[in-house]
Amino acid sequence: MSEYTDSWRLIMREIDTALSAVDEHQVEDLVDALLAAEKVFFAGVGRVALSLQAMVKRLNHLDIHAWCVGDLGEPAITERDLLVVGSGSGESVVPVAIAKVAKRHGARIAHIGSNPESSLAPMTDLFVRIPVRTRLNREGEIESSQIMTSLFEQALYILGDTISLMIRRRKGIGDLGTLWRRHANLE
Amino acid sequence: MSEYTDSWRLIMREIDTALSAVDEHQVEDLVDALLAAEKVFFAGVGRVALSLQAMVKRLNHLDIHAWCVGDLGEPAITERDLLVVGSGSGESVVPVAIAKVAKRHGARIAHIGSNPESSLAPMTDLFVRIPVRTRLNREGEIESSQIMTSLFEQALYILGDTISLMIRRRKGIGDLGTLWRRHANLE
Amino acid sequence: MSEYTDSWRLIMREIDTALSAVDEHQVEDLVDALLAAEKVFFAGVGRVALSLQAMVKRLNHLDIHAWCVGDLGEPAITERDLLVVGSGSGESVVPVAIAKVAKRHGARIAHIGSNPESSLAPMTDLFVRIPVRTRLNREGEIESSQIMTSLFEQALYILGDTISLMIRRRKGIGDLGTLWRRHANLE
Amino acid sequence: MSEYTDSWRLIMREIDTALSAVDEHQVEDLVDALLAAEKVFFAGVGRVALSLQAMVKRLNHLDIHAWCVGDLGEPAITERDLLVVGSGSGESVVPVAIAKVAKRHGARIAHIGSNPESSLAPMTDLFVRIPVRTRLNREGEIESSQIMTSLFEQALYILGDTISLMIRRRKGIGDLGTLWRRHANLE
Repeated sequence: MSEYTDSWRLIMREIDTALSAVDEHQVEDLVDALLAAEKVFFAGVGRVALSLQAMVKRLNHLDIHAWCVGDLGEPAITERDLLVVGSGSGESVVPVAIAKVAKRHGARIAHIGSNPESSLAPMTDLFVRIPVRTRLNREGEIESSQIMTSLFEQALYILGDTISLMIRRRKGIGDLGTLWRRHANLE
Repeated sequence: MSEYTDSWRLIMREIDTALSAVDEHQVEDLVDALLAAEKVFFAGVGRVALSLQAMVKRLNHLDIHAWCVGDLGEPAITERDLLVVGSGSGESVVPVAIAKVAKRHGARIAHIGSNPESSLAPMTDLFVRIPVRTRLNREGEIESSQIMTSLFEQALYILGDTISLMIRRRKGIGDLGTLWRRHANLE
Repeated sequence: MSEYTDSWRLIMREIDTALSAVDEHQVEDLVDALLAAEKVFFAGVGRVALSLQAMVKRLNHLDIHAWCVGDLGEPAITERDLLVVGSGSGESVVPVAIAKVAKRHGARIAHIGSNPESSLAPMTDLFVRIPVRTRLNREGEIESSQIMTSLFEQALYILGDTISLMIRRRKGIGDLGTLWRRHANLE
Repeated sequence: MSEYTDSWRLIMREIDTALSAVDEHQVEDLVDALLAAEKVFFAGVGRVALSLQAMVKRLNHLDIHAWCVGDLGEPAITERDLLVVGSGSGESVVPVAIAKVAKRHGARIAHIGSNPESSLAPMTDLFVRIPVRTRLNREGEIESSQIMTSLFEQALYILGDTISLMIRRRKGIGDLGTLWRRHANLE
């Protein structure tokens, strides 16, 4: 087997193991919360933020009013809104700081992460666990032979697109034409 | 006079000269176009893009539906919308490419720049000239002793905030409380 | 099978089919080019840009000097550098415009896309084909039941991480400690 | 006087008052610190972040190794580096959280703000005060009739370019040709 094939199959096998280990009820609860909220905000850092941005772009096409914290057009969060934090360890200082502020404004907090006992846990209304090893090892977590926290970022990216598929079905959007009207067309 | 005082006064003098040389009717036409459009899109590169982003953030607070091209939530442009291009020379390849696409979609095109005879000129419905020297020198243009095209970027930044003040007056927004509801509150 | 499981498995199956159809020699040539270049620049739009950004972050950890076009610290491109364009159709106006400029500066051009006969083809030194259907259908291309061009974006994301694994092996980086020194640690 | 002229003059007068009130020794200390650091990181939110980004772009042209926190290529901070926080109130939760992390890594902390008695004060090695009114009014501070904290953002933008001019002189960079080699040339 070539180096290329060997490498991508290793990654896909790891993502498969990670997504298999996610509790489907937790994902369904998150889908419900995304559909119930007036506006949705996402917070994360580094490559986790990129996975969330990919999700935000698609959610907007599906007519969910979604922003990443820091976006130019980001409005004020209120008690009718949802903040989704992506953080494997649940200890990244910036997302934790943002979650505290969101809580103070009365918003609901969802956390997609690996660690169920993090600083975020006491603030969290909804938790979706992707049980992969982050820098702190815990029992029962999926090991990865990839660089840094790549596996969490990859699983989060695919989870985001999975959620978009689920929302498309729930909303009964068959015709993609309406989606393109919300899709950027200048570049 | 200290080096600090000497430097900031030099910059402020140059900006003053640049903004004095802008035709107020061109600015008023741009304000009218911003208020008339259903959505407004901004395109520019480098530090020019940063000046436009500062403007977009404030316009959103003033309830103008504005995006920079490339923003996560950017929707499709239509014939009811306005594209504002910021480019001193009017020759930056990316903004010119975007303007062509916007034109094809039937949008109006405004250009804020220095050069009235650029590649953008034939596509432009509205032109606001900040007559400062860019890399190509033309007669009657304001010289700058600053680095690169700093003066254009600075004048554009202040022009953006000037336009926001003018729009606030036109809309009769006295109470800033309503503005804060559209202002990010998580970071 | 639950809606969640059904959805993520559909996505993973499609990515698997797409990555299986990529020619390993094209990927190896791209890895060689990334290692040979003095600096590497990446250009793409929308969710494709996000997949490229994820790749750029990891390449920097692996000591490849990489930027996305538009990054704050982006330097000038020269004839010793490589531009990697991500575009399924090879027709996105902004990446095509950027590729022309890069060519004029004498840089090498790599294209990761679906369409081998695009506007980019005549400029391209290296082509990696992910043969998925984009908006224009061509014979032999992989169909997707996902939204818009999600499959291309997903396959590109995983391809980026595959390339990072390959580069890590080529460079013989065993110790991840050195990688963390190039990893942001403030958020 | 036209509405345009009235508006931009109001803004320029306010910036003038703000920059006149800055202590030149504080600015000189910041310039020294920027030149002494191995790497420089900038943190701020909203339009303040945009002013810092404009500064980071120019500093890179002047061969200062500068990043905004969150940039794709951001490396790890060390005890040989400087973090510059821009925050009028000195209470923005994200910059304060980042400053704590930077302190833990042994970096020096500079704060450009209005409020000398903020949460940042105990962590700060260097303070540059732009004494304009933020949301919390304090005695002796400059009032603004502009929207929100525009005046702080504008003064910070011009201060950034002032610092670039000062650094250019200190480094004796006469020839702008060398600067363009570090300037993006693809868009």
